[in-house]
Amino acid sequence: MKLVKEKITKREAIYYSHKMAQLSKALWKAIEKDWQNWIKPFQLNINEHHILWIAYHLKGASISEISKYGVMHVSTAFNFSKKMEERGLLQFSKRENDKRNTYVELTPEGNDLLESTLNEYDPDDNSVLKGVMPMTEMFGKLPEFLDLSALIKEIYGDEYMEILERSLENIEEEALVNEPTDLEKYKQKSQKSRSS
Amino acid sequence: MKLVKEKITKREAIYYSHKMAQLSKALWKAIEKDWQNWIKPFQLNINEHHILWIAYHLKGASISEISKYGVMHVSTAFNFSKKMEERGLLQFSKRENDKRNTYVELTPEGNDLLESTLNEYDPDDNSVLKGVMPMTEMFGKLPEFLDLSALIKEIYGDEYMEILERSLENIEEEALVNEPTDLEKYKQKSQKSRSS
Repeated sequence: MKLVKEKITKREAIYYSHKMAQLSKALWKAIEKDWQNWIKPFQLNINEHHILWIAYHLKGASISEISKYGVMHVSTAFNFSKKMEERGLLQFSKRENDKRNTYVELTPEGNDLLESTLNEYDPDDNSVLKGVMPMTEMFGKLPEFLDLSALIKEIYGDEYMEILERSLENIEEEALVNEPTDLEKYKQKSQKSRSS
Repeated sequence: MKLVKEKITKREAIYYSHKMAQLSKALWKAIEKDWQNWIKPFQLNINEHHILWIAYHLKGASISEISKYGVMHVSTAFNFSKKMEERGLLQFSKRENDKRNTYVELTPEGNDLLESTLNEYDPDDNSVLKGVMPMTEMFGKLPEFLDLSALIKEIYGDEYMEILERSLENIEEEALVNEPTDLEKYKQKSQKSRSS
């Protein structure tokens, strides 16, 4: 296959892929660090929290879905799921229409734990959110990273993006965070004062 | 600090940071895998290659520069540098004007090894380059990921971006790849045939 070679020189290719490697490593390391700090009080590592998160949003998921969507090896997905089953956070099952795959679902304890982490989540501890604020102020909305989304869709395929969209829709639909945040309280107050 | 909270709701924040975490993890894991496959024949791991790369492009670098720019712990930067010193690929030194920091430079063997990896680099094995090709065709140029660059600049500061720019300028200036690539040969041929 010479798809790329016909379009750009080798030097351009090295330049471009080096830049993307640096930006991507820097971004992921920042996100990883914030994620670790966020869930540290709950005695979970990132892989475990990611598995709970995926199973929560997809309302149960197969080990292979967790592996694909969580971008982790099947054995990593399975081993950490097993550990969390032993802790009573997940349960394994087979589905009637799909006997080959192992599914995991959150137990009530797993559900409570995941929701506790979401309640503890503080946007002000998040480097990405703080980092996009200047752009948000400049353009009046959060930057969409459309080229990044398009690239991931090319690399991982439509299915990856569909699962991402499904899990994001669930965040919008669910009463994820029961407690109003400072901002919501503030909004309610200002709506009241405006309507009175 | 309530900078973020004043701009967006907690739900929006969770939605947005989850999406960014998924995209960023997916991107980095794809880049990491390609990188591993690329340098596997040279018996280097990614950290080692990254250290050689940084020292090569900055024409020598301190351990703290490697740590910062390579987004790795100082101890990781030091330990892998030490291993490569033992393999004869790097040498340690102090600088006259900076006695506190340890600097590493490539030995001629390290230089040869790094250049061999660059010569082996094949753009067609690179998921990112293949993934950006549809956008490149649509817009007539490689996508610039400007919002991603702006975000990294916010998180890591101007210095990170300056080192990135410096190392990228070096790629352009140096006769990095001495052998013309297939494309360059092709171009030379077609220029000749056009001018004749």
